Amino acid sequence: MTGSYPFLKGHGTRNDFVLLPDHDGSVHGDLAAERVRALCDRRGGIGADGVLRVVRRDDRWFMDYRNADGSVAEMCGNGIRVFARHLVDEGLEQTGHPLLIDTRDGVKNVTVDAGADGRDGRVTVDMGVPRLLGATRVAVGERRWDAVHVDVGNPHAVAFVDDLADAGPLREAPDHDPERYPDGVNVEFVVRRGEHHVAMRVHERGSGETQACGTGACAVMVAAAEADGAGPDVDYRVDQPGGPLTIRRTEGGRVLMTGPAVIVARGTTDL
Amino acid sequence: MTGSYPFLKGHGTRNDFVLLPDHDGSVHGDLAAERVRALCDRRGGIGADGVLRVVRRDDRWFMDYRNADGSVAEMCGNGIRVFARHLVDEGLEQTGHPLLIDTRDGVKNVTVDAGADGRDGRVTVDMGVPRLLGATRVAVGERRWDAVHVDVGNPHAVAFVDDLADAGPLREAPDHDPERYPDGVNVEFVVRRGEHHVAMRVHERGSGETQACGTGACAVMVAAAEADGAGPDVDYRVDQPGGPLTIRRTEGGRVLMTGPAVIVARGTTDL
Repeated sequence: MTGSYPFLKGHGTRNDFVLLPDHDGSVHGDLAAERVRALCDRRGGIGADGVLRVVRRDDRWFMDYRNADGSVAEMCGNGIRVFARHLVDEGLEQTGHPLLIDTRDGVKNVTVDAGADGRDGRVTVDMGVPRLLGATRVAVGERRWDAVHVDVGNPHAVAFVDDLADAGPLREAPDHDPERYPDGVNVEFVVRRGEHHVAMRVHERGSGETQACGTGACAVMVAAAEADGAGPDVDYRVDQPGGPLTIRRTEGGRVLMTGPAVIVARGTTDL
Repeated sequence: MTGSYPFLKGHGTRNDFVLLPDHDGSVHGDLAAERVRALCDRRGGIGADGVLRVVRRDDRWFMDYRNADGSVAEMCGNGIRVFARHLVDEGLEQTGHPLLIDTRDGVKNVTVDAGADGRDGRVTVDMGVPRLLGATRVAVGERRWDAVHVDVGNPHAVAFVDDLADAGPLREAPDHDPERYPDGVNVEFVVRRGEHHVAMRVHERGSGETQACGTGACAVMVAAAEADGAGPDVDYRVDQPGGPLTIRRTEGGRVLMTGPAVIVARGTTDL
């Protein structure tokens, strides 16, 4: 492909994405890893944590998500909020009813609130049923913490700490049980801020410390609700460096993640 | 101001900028520091090292340059190449003759080569007459180096080292003579790569280590040419992490910096 093609840039709790509208697949076809890296390059390109290619497939919207390094990923909780926001902004879908968005992790149920001006409403994603898988331990240098193993489609270790600074600068992955987590783990450090209110930092496998992690916030909520003995349908506020999310666990154990998503720029590029 | 307005994004040797066309000053007027910070925010905004507002003033183009933190800056050697590239791309100026571009550091003489397809030519900027101001010293931790004080409108200390890794991760400003440099200094570490060919790293005051610094490359070339006893009009290649620049010192002592500049995206934003 040569010449310029359309893009948008948006973010959810400061997890940012380049969106590539490609409804019938004719613009990008197989999106090359090299092009994803060029788009996500924060100095030579537009800059983002990942690319969301917007494709129509089998009467549904398909979120073709790629990491900034060009690799294929199944699902991204912050990304799908931005994806749904884009569909509503462009009039491709409406607010007020659930959208069914296809991902490599299956079809997701997403609801966009209308918001005050139709473009600032929050977005709720049904993140499925997390599984609590018992106790484990994580460590940073000499410091060790008890943690809870939570699976939200991807593996997490949630450690309650006295102070979010205790884990230090998190330049490397925290130590963890390699038998329990053979493919690595996302580690959350959590403090309590009040009733049904926690704050977290996260080290994502493959990415390092990030400002927000949708599945991490869900894992943290489930671990906290379990420790609290909380009933269903209670909203927890989970503060992250990139901003707060609201997480609710339903009677059936499904977790609903609600947070902001915004498109900040649109245009064309020849990257 | 509300609503969306045009922008472009470009870079020169990976020093990147958001450009804001505002020819008659009616779009942005006094550009608020808050808006500059929002545009340059690499996750919540578009992301850049600075903003170049494109204004017509007294029959010339004026480069209204702002740092990412919103502060006003006089001049930026990589930025003015991108600025000139934009003028030519848009048909506002032509290749093949010098453009006179106004900055807060005075009028600069800039030439855009036509290049193979009219958009990939390199850009040459007359950076004025650097001044060699004698010997000084810089240090990182326990390591100390002799350095040369060069003024290119802003202050530099150029240290020739055995290996670019010698200065370490450069997380903090190198130690320097506070009486010589009361407002801080940009420190370049330089190795020789061959005849008229050097490579550098730079720690910029206020910014930390960066991938490229136009005035730094000029300071390095002048220090190297002086050490070599080189005559005028010899091209030096100065490699930076963001890419190479070609620097020439003329008979009259003026320094001409030549390097790439590219626009990668254009569109609208409501940031």
